Amino acid sequence: MENATLYTQVRPAGGEMTSVLVRDGRIQALGGPAPAGVPVVEGGGALMLPGLIDAHAHLDKTMYGMPWYRNEVGPRLIDKIENERAEKKRLGIDPYRQSARQLVMSIGDGTSHIRSHVDVDTDIGLAAIEGVMRAREQYRDQIDVEIVAFPQSGLLIRPGTLELMDEALRMGAEVVGGLDPAGMDRDPKGHLDAIFGLAQRHGKPIDIHLHEAGELGAFSMQMTIDRVLALGMQGKVTLSHSFCLGMPDTYAVQALTEGLLKAGVHIMTTGSASRPVPNVAKLHAAGVTVCTGNDGMRDTWGPYGKPDMLERTMLVGLRNNFRRDDELDLALHVATYGNAQVMGLSDYGLAPGCHADFVLVDAETVAEAIVSRPPRKLVVKGGRVVARDGRALAEAP
Amino acid sequence: MENATLYTQVRPAGGEMTSVLVRDGRIQALGGPAPAGVPVVEGGGALMLPGLIDAHAHLDKTMYGMPWYRNEVGPRLIDKIENERAEKKRLGIDPYRQSARQLVMSIGDGTSHIRSHVDVDTDIGLAAIEGVMRAREQYRDQIDVEIVAFPQSGLLIRPGTLELMDEALRMGAEVVGGLDPAGMDRDPKGHLDAIFGLAQRHGKPIDIHLHEAGELGAFSMQMTIDRVLALGMQGKVTLSHSFCLGMPDTYAVQALTEGLLKAGVHIMTTGSASRPVPNVAKLHAAGVTVCTGNDGMRDTWGPYGKPDMLERTMLVGLRNNFRRDDELDLALHVATYGNAQVMGLSDYGLAPGCHADFVLVDAETVAEAIVSRPPRKLVVKGGRVVARDGRALAEAP
Repeated sequence: MENATLYTQVRPAGGEMTSVLVRDGRIQALGGPAPAGVPVVEGGGALMLPGLIDAHAHLDKTMYGMPWYRNEVGPRLIDKIENERAEKKRLGIDPYRQSARQLVMSIGDGTSHIRSHVDVDTDIGLAAIEGVMRAREQYRDQIDVEIVAFPQSGLLIRPGTLELMDEALRMGAEVVGGLDPAGMDRDPKGHLDAIFGLAQRHGKPIDIHLHEAGELGAFSMQMTIDRVLALGMQGKVTLSHSFCLGMPDTYAVQALTEGLLKAGVHIMTTGSASRPVPNVAKLHAAGVTVCTGNDGMRDTWGPYGKPDMLERTMLVGLRNNFRRDDELDLALHVATYGNAQVMGLSDYGLAPGCHADFVLVDAETVAEAIVSRPPRKLVVKGGRVVARDGRALAEAP
Repeated sequence: MENATLYTQVRPAGGEMTSVLVRDGRIQALGGPAPAGVPVVEGGGALMLPGLIDAHAHLDKTMYGMPWYRNEVGPRLIDKIENERAEKKRLGIDPYRQSARQLVMSIGDGTSHIRSHVDVDTDIGLAAIEGVMRAREQYRDQIDVEIVAFPQSGLLIRPGTLELMDEALRMGAEVVGGLDPAGMDRDPKGHLDAIFGLAQRHGKPIDIHLHEAGELGAFSMQMTIDRVLALGMQGKVTLSHSFCLGMPDTYAVQALTEGLLKAGVHIMTTGSASRPVPNVAKLHAAGVTVCTGNDGMRDTWGPYGKPDMLERTMLVGLRNNFRRDDELDLALHVATYGNAQVMGLSDYGLAPGCHADFVLVDAETVAEAIVSRPPRKLVVKGGRVVARDGRALAEAP
């Protein structure tokens, strides 16, 4: 049997010890005997998790590998946006190089897929899109990258941005990004009409950064839901952050939740510790698909972050007061199957027929993997080993 | 020169590269030339931090090194307390063995001092106090442990507990613990009178777990402040958690803050991501001493936690939305000098004359050390190397 490997003594999702036969980049069978001539990799009882997914990254922004950036930035959102635009030029934050560095770290931590928002604005034009595309091409056998064209500096308030977004989507960006329709563009109707227009024209999904809190965020969220229903875009729209779902008015949150469910709008949460956040367990129980990601990492916005999605899962768990094992199983579900659903990945998981994207870690249970975050023992992508003992085999620039 | 070592190429608190002369367990000089015959340890440009301090631990509870504990515990505080009391017996959570394991991990992570609350109740009596005392004696040259006699299962609602607390303090527990005067004992006046009575009789400080949120917590906090002022116990009382300081009523918080300052009451926060929390920057600016600790770790309450105080400092930073370098410097100040002040440590720090308790880490800045949490390169306690490359030299049982 060619192009095949048998992984023995592994425990998929923490279950019983079994073996996993991988062939031609896919999981072919679980628990069968070793076919003749197939090389065997001993898992040593390791926990096997499906490839981790980062459904909200900013690959073009990270400063990993650069000198320490002393953060003296002001407190408002606009302070951070303007500071970043200036610092990109001053410090030479190269989108290709920085994306590549983060990708290599992510591969080492067992991430098989990333959705990255990538800045599009009238200062840098499409340079960041081009840089991230170059990096994703370079590492295409080790990790999959989906690109969101993201109007970080505003869409309507910076004329020319809409045309650049259009061009980014023509170039191959897979998702239309948006940002605080009221708070940033000061024109919620205009902003939403513009990005839904782009989505319709290009036949692509939408992912909007919605930082707007409380009643303002609820207003923008409801306007989004209305457009999804009117345009028949169910299942194609994600609202990232959605801090408004953390507001105290539980009746309003309930009404929004019902709207999200009806419109098939997905919610991305990082489990931010310092903002109101969506309640993962309640959204999941209501039937809303929840996903998560690391967001910006070691950038001009803030110094935190590792590419490790197990650490992110822990932070989501801490924020949601998940203590029970079944609660931590849900947190991992969000970081794997939830993210896969939002990104529209097919044949994702550990069942026969799925792509052979998986991670082995030394942990007794899923919960232990999340709270201990051990170095990834082995990372397999498309049937190929791409990292060992916490380090990617690929090199970063 | 005997009993001396020169540490060269180190950067105390991230400042200029210098050398540090250690003699007889204390820092003798910074920046001087190497005296004849003194062994030299090359720091390689590492950041030097004062010994990290965990000002709120539960050494007797951790399940590190035991089989994974599947958590199926109910949501209320009392569920967790009652579950723990039962599981201690069923699983044999040995206070000596478990304390020793956590101490060895803490030494490896650069912790020089721990304040540990230790359960006292009518089921286990003083067994946990005795177990932790045995462990601290065993590791006394590597780490300092202060013991709080802690009535985890309630003080007045379980007759006999007060007498056990009295005995624990006679045996050498350094601090009188308390727990939710209203929420747990259902008798705030009785509870506070009892623990202040113990403190007065034994001449010892107080550290109360105050989980009570909102107006109820504010009530218990004000009753505590009143007693501190009446009894002249300024500087001797800590209120741990103090979730009520995270309540929305900023006027009430301001009034409490003024009371805390006047009474010299310290506040301990873990930066809990799922509860309202005290605002570290505002309390510090007002002049209130803030401290922090890891709290329970891998126990029947929840699976989270590492003994790493740099990770705790990161979590405090994330919860307080600290992004700027000066904000992260404050977070580390809390985890070092703040904790030292609350525990009444003398000669703490990196100045000449201080105890030679310090940590070397490979990081460019304090902020980088906090967000990256690199393995501790070298840990020195009382002038002696106690850990290297993230591992304590001592063995755990």
